[in-house]
Amino acid sequence: MLRLYDYLESGNGYKVRLLLHQLELPFERVELDILKGETRTPAFLAKNPNGRIPTLELEDGSCLPESNAILWYLAEGTPFLPADRLARAQALSWMCFEQYSHEPNIATLRFWTHAGFLEQRAALVPGKREAGTAALGVMEGQLAKHRFFVGERYSIADIALYAYTHVAEEGGFALGPYPAIRAWLARVAAQPRHIPITRA
Amino acid sequence: MLRLYDYLESGNGYKVRLLLHQLELPFERVELDILKGETRTPAFLAKNPNGRIPTLELEDGSCLPESNAILWYLAEGTPFLPADRLARAQALSWMCFEQYSHEPNIATLRFWTHAGFLEQRAALVPGKREAGTAALGVMEGQLAKHRFFVGERYSIADIALYAYTHVAEEGGFALGPYPAIRAWLARVAAQPRHIPITRA
Repeated sequence: MLRLYDYLESGNGYKVRLLLHQLELPFERVELDILKGETRTPAFLAKNPNGRIPTLELEDGSCLPESNAILWYLAEGTPFLPADRLARAQALSWMCFEQYSHEPNIATLRFWTHAGFLEQRAALVPGKREAGTAALGVMEGQLAKHRFFVGERYSIADIALYAYTHVAEEGGFALGPYPAIRAWLARVAAQPRHIPITRA
Repeated sequence: MLRLYDYLESGNGYKVRLLLHQLELPFERVELDILKGETRTPAFLAKNPNGRIPTLELEDGSCLPESNAILWYLAEGTPFLPADRLARAQALSWMCFEQYSHEPNIATLRFWTHAGFLEQRAALVPGKREAGTAALGVMEGQLAKHRFFVGERYSIADIALYAYTHVAEEGGFALGPYPAIRAWLARVAAQPRHIPITRA
């Protein structure tokens, strides 16, 4: 059976949980508390030398880290990844945008808020606030013209961007000014076999 | 003809230039000076709303941003991207590692050094130094056991990680302590049709 090394609060972990549910693939979940160093033990570093969740362990023991690479692996050959060459690259482009321009700002401010790190890292907050707001602006522009990020249908690009956008307010990013994002969040949440981030 | 919006000093741009040369694909290069705001003009934002190079414009006018998505698009169906499903995902996993754990630290300190931003951003430097060093450690571990990142052969995962690793010393990351990385850099530079980062 697939085994997912995970941390329930993580949006990166949630991406994988959500797709596994939507693909109806059974999996075992192993919760690792990133705040207690459980992803930096020798046993886990042997599975992912970068010491991060999510990491997917396949039935042959191979381990695959990086949420968006796991989404890609699971989605290949399914309707969650476009078949057309350019559309596939566009999906990947939005997923790269998510990991570079969105997650380090929007997810990080949520994590620092939850973990009580905001004061200690106050010097870094304005830059992340500005960059996260810019990322939401880019998303709003795309979603004002399109129902989903690629090819007018739900794909792993939407899953990747939904994970931290739908909880962006927990990091202080108000979504009121982004009507197209809010309408898209509702469309994503209405997909068959959707699960909330709180569902293990 | 393919048109690459680029900035010569950018390792992200270099990834695409290098693969285009190795695939022997002709392309037109448009240099945009990121320090002069040339990626934030209305004309360029219409091509990439995130305002970044590299962006590849296809013959039909479609624009594809994000260096690693462009590599993927160009490499599909060629020997530069593995055919096996797990190997493809492993290549993507290393490319996600590059954009999340490597580039924001190693490329950013190089850029700040070149652009004279180090003093002004001094508070951010130690965190980036530490995270970049950790990323080099992860690479060294993989390359101590393998000739290339995936499947023992040169792929776009190597191109993605080579781009900023081979100039890491320009950002103050000495490569002396990483013999496996240095041997791999030489293997990558010895590939057919390799070009240097300075070649437009």
